Amino acid sequence: MEHGYIRKGVRLCITGSEVMNGFILDKNTQFFASELYALGFELKESRVLPDNEEQILRAWSELRETGDIIINSGGLGPTSDDLTVDLLCKWLNDTPAYDPYAEKRTRYFFEKRASRMDMQIQGSSHQISLETALRQARIPSTAKAIKNSVGLAPGIYFPEIPFIALPGFPDEIRGMWSEVLSLIKSLNVTRSATKIIPVWGVGESQLFSQLEKPTNFTLGVHALPWGCRLFLRAPSEDASVFEEFSASLEKNFPAQIMESPVANLVEFLTKNRLSISVAESCTGGLAAKQITDIPGVSAVFKGGVVTYANEAKSSLINVSQEVLLEHGAVSAQCARSMAEGVAHALDTDVAIAFTGIAGPTGGTPTKPVGTVYIGIYNRKRSETRTARFQFPLGRERFRNASVACGFLAAYQAIAMENQSYWPLKNFH
Amino acid sequence: MEHGYIRKGVRLCITGSEVMNGFILDKNTQFFASELYALGFELKESRVLPDNEEQILRAWSELRETGDIIINSGGLGPTSDDLTVDLLCKWLNDTPAYDPYAEKRTRYFFEKRASRMDMQIQGSSHQISLETALRQARIPSTAKAIKNSVGLAPGIYFPEIPFIALPGFPDEIRGMWSEVLSLIKSLNVTRSATKIIPVWGVGESQLFSQLEKPTNFTLGVHALPWGCRLFLRAPSEDASVFEEFSASLEKNFPAQIMESPVANLVEFLTKNRLSISVAESCTGGLAAKQITDIPGVSAVFKGGVVTYANEAKSSLINVSQEVLLEHGAVSAQCARSMAEGVAHALDTDVAIAFTGIAGPTGGTPTKPVGTVYIGIYNRKRSETRTARFQFPLGRERFRNASVACGFLAAYQAIAMENQSYWPLKNFH
Repeated sequence: MEHGYIRKGVRLCITGSEVMNGFILDKNTQFFASELYALGFELKESRVLPDNEEQILRAWSELRETGDIIINSGGLGPTSDDLTVDLLCKWLNDTPAYDPYAEKRTRYFFEKRASRMDMQIQGSSHQISLETALRQARIPSTAKAIKNSVGLAPGIYFPEIPFIALPGFPDEIRGMWSEVLSLIKSLNVTRSATKIIPVWGVGESQLFSQLEKPTNFTLGVHALPWGCRLFLRAPSEDASVFEEFSASLEKNFPAQIMESPVANLVEFLTKNRLSISVAESCTGGLAAKQITDIPGVSAVFKGGVVTYANEAKSSLINVSQEVLLEHGAVSAQCARSMAEGVAHALDTDVAIAFTGIAGPTGGTPTKPVGTVYIGIYNRKRSETRTARFQFPLGRERFRNASVACGFLAAYQAIAMENQSYWPLKNFH
Repeated sequence: MEHGYIRKGVRLCITGSEVMNGFILDKNTQFFASELYALGFELKESRVLPDNEEQILRAWSELRETGDIIINSGGLGPTSDDLTVDLLCKWLNDTPAYDPYAEKRTRYFFEKRASRMDMQIQGSSHQISLETALRQARIPSTAKAIKNSVGLAPGIYFPEIPFIALPGFPDEIRGMWSEVLSLIKSLNVTRSATKIIPVWGVGESQLFSQLEKPTNFTLGVHALPWGCRLFLRAPSEDASVFEEFSASLEKNFPAQIMESPVANLVEFLTKNRLSISVAESCTGGLAAKQITDIPGVSAVFKGGVVTYANEAKSSLINVSQEVLLEHGAVSAQCARSMAEGVAHALDTDVAIAFTGIAGPTGGTPTKPVGTVYIGIYNRKRSETRTARFQFPLGRERFRNASVACGFLAAYQAIAMENQSYWPLKNFH
C-alpha cells in the first residue's frame, strides 16, 4: 500500500511583523493545519517570524534539514518589507525574473487602477508606482509559478527541496489552495485516512458512555459550541477502519451529526419556503447575527427582537404582565410567550426564543447563572414547545451553546418526522 | 540609559497537537505578541509544535542557542500527552518534585471534585484519579514555581537559561501574566518605549494626508473595523519622541481616538442613567450582540429589533408604507423612521438604526452593495439625524464597519458638546 510513498510531513513558516507584534491574529496556521489534517497529511511544525532576513534564512535552512515539505506564507507583496523573492534568490543562488502571467495582470490592473490594487497592501489604501507594483510579479528564475487569480503575486514552487511560497492574504491562499494540494500530492507523500465528525449536543464523556473508544485508529476530540467534533485518523490510507465506529455513531446520534445546525435549518426553510423569526433575551442578538451571517437569508428570515428589558418583551412581542410577574422573565412560560409573540408579530412559520441568565450576575438559587429556557414555535403543528438547559460556561460560551442548542432543536422540530430525538425530546 | 541592560528578545514555543491538527485556533501567540509588544519587548519568533518529545527537545535546543528568553506554553496538564515537566527534566538532567502549593490545591480540589478539576482537560469532562491529577502539581526540582491561581498546574521558571513554561489555557496564562512580566523585567532586558493609538473613522492614507509621517520612531498601522490602530515604537526607552506626533494626532482627531466606541457609549449612558435601543436591518443583530457582549449592560440596553423584512419594519417599529414605497428600505428616511420607531416602542433616550445592503447581491446603481444609512435618535435634543456611508468591503467587514461607525457617531452625539466632529458632522 505504501509502495513508492515517502513518509514526509509538512512544515509551515508564516512571516509577517504584523503577526509577530500582535497587530493581527494569525488564522493562516489553522487554515493550513485543518486542511492538511483533513486530507491526511501530517503538519509537524509552524513557525511565525518577523520580516527579518537573517531569521527567515536561518529558519528555512533548519526546516530544510528535516526533509519535510516547507510551506512559507507571507512576504510576496510589493513593498520593501516583502522579502520572500529576494531571500529565496539569495538562499538558492538564483535571480528574480518576471512571471509573464503575473506581469501582464499587474500592468492591466495598474492601468485600470483597480481597487484590488490598493487592497494588496495590508492596513489601508496606498498609491504605488508601476515599478513598485511589478516587484510582486517576480519569482526566482528557476522556480515554477503558482497562479494567483485573486491577488497579483504568484506563488513559488521548488519541487526539489520541496518548498512552496504563498502570499499571506487568506483569500489568495484559498484561491491557490487546490493547485498547492496537487503539487503536494505529486510528491507521493503518504497520507493517513482521516474523517471529521461533528456531533452536537453531547459531551465527550457522555459520548463514550454510549460508545466504545476505538482501538484501531487514533481519535482526537474537540469541543463545539455545544457538543464535540471527532477527528478520526487511521494508521494508513485505508479508511475502512472507521466503518464500524462511524456506523455506531450514526446509530446512537442520528439527529445530532451535521456541520452546522443553523445552516441546516436555513437550508430546510429555504427549500420549503418557510419563514423564521427569533426572540432573544440573554443571547442578545447572537441568534439573529448567526442567521444573517448566511448570505441570501432574507428569503426566509423576516427578523427578530432583542427583548433585554421586561418592557421590551411586553411592548414588542406582547409577553403578558401575568407571565412576567407570576413566572418571571426566565421561565418556560416566558420562552413560550416570546416565541409565539415574535411569530405573531412577524407572521412567520417558525420562531425560536431564548431567555436566561448569561451572567456573571443575576443568578438565583433556583435559576443560577447559565440557566436558559428555549421556546420553539411551529405553525405547521400549531404547537410551541419549551425546554430548560444549564450551560454554566461563562457569558460567551453560554450564549454560543444556547443558540447552537436552539438551532439544533428547531431543525429537528421542523425537518424531522421523529420528534423524540435529543435535544428536542427535552422540549414539552 | 541602556546601562546594564541586555538586548534580548523573547521566543515562544506553543505545544499542542490540537493546534497542529487545526482543531483549534491558536490565540495565545497573539496574546503573548501583543502584550510583549505593548510593554516594549521584542518577540522574535513563535513556534507551534505537536506534543512530540523529539520535536520539542530539538526546538528548545535551537531556541536556547539564540540566547533569547524562551516562553513555552502548553503541556502542563495531568494527561500522558502533557510532556513539558518530564521533557524539561530530561533536557536539564533534573528530576520532578511536587510544588507544595500546587500539591495542596490539587488535593483540596480533588476532594471537593470541583468542576474546575474536570475542566482542566481540554475537550470535555473526564473523571481522573488523584494520582493522575497530582502529575500536574510537579515541577523540575531545581526550577522556581510560578503560582497558578486559576488552574492547578504551576508555571516553571529557570532564570539561568532563561526559560518560562506556562499552561496552554488562556485564562490561566492571563492569571499568571503579571508574575511572568516581573520575571522578564528582572532579567534587565532592554525595552523600547511603545504606544498604541486607535483612531476610528479614518484610513491610513487619509490620516497621513493630514499628518506628517514620523521619522524619529517606527510606526506600524493596522486596520480597525473602521479606522486604524497606530503602533508607535521608539528606538530606546525614551517615550518623549512620541509627544509631538501624539499631540498633533489628538489635535486632528479629537473625537476619534478611543479603545472602543461601543464601550465608551455604554459607559456614558450608564453614568448618565440613559437608555438605548437599536433597530437593525443589514447589520442583522450585530449591533445588539456587541452591546450585550458587555456584562451588566441591562442597566441601559432595553432591547432591539432586527427588521430584516419590510413587514417587520412596519409591524415592530411602525415604519410607514409611505417611507418604504417612496424612499425604499435603504434610505435616510427609513433609517430615521427605524431609529424613532424603536425608541418609541422601547421608550429609550437614544436609538441607533442601520439599514443598507450587505451583499453579495441586492445592490442597485444608486445604492450599490456596501451602502448603509445610519440613524441616531437623541431624546434630549429631540432630534434624529441620519447619514449615508459606503463600506464596499464584503459582507462581514461591511457589517463590522457599519456598527463601529454607528456607535462612534452615537457616542459623539450623546456625550460631546461639539456636534460637528467626524463622522457625526456627516449626519443631517
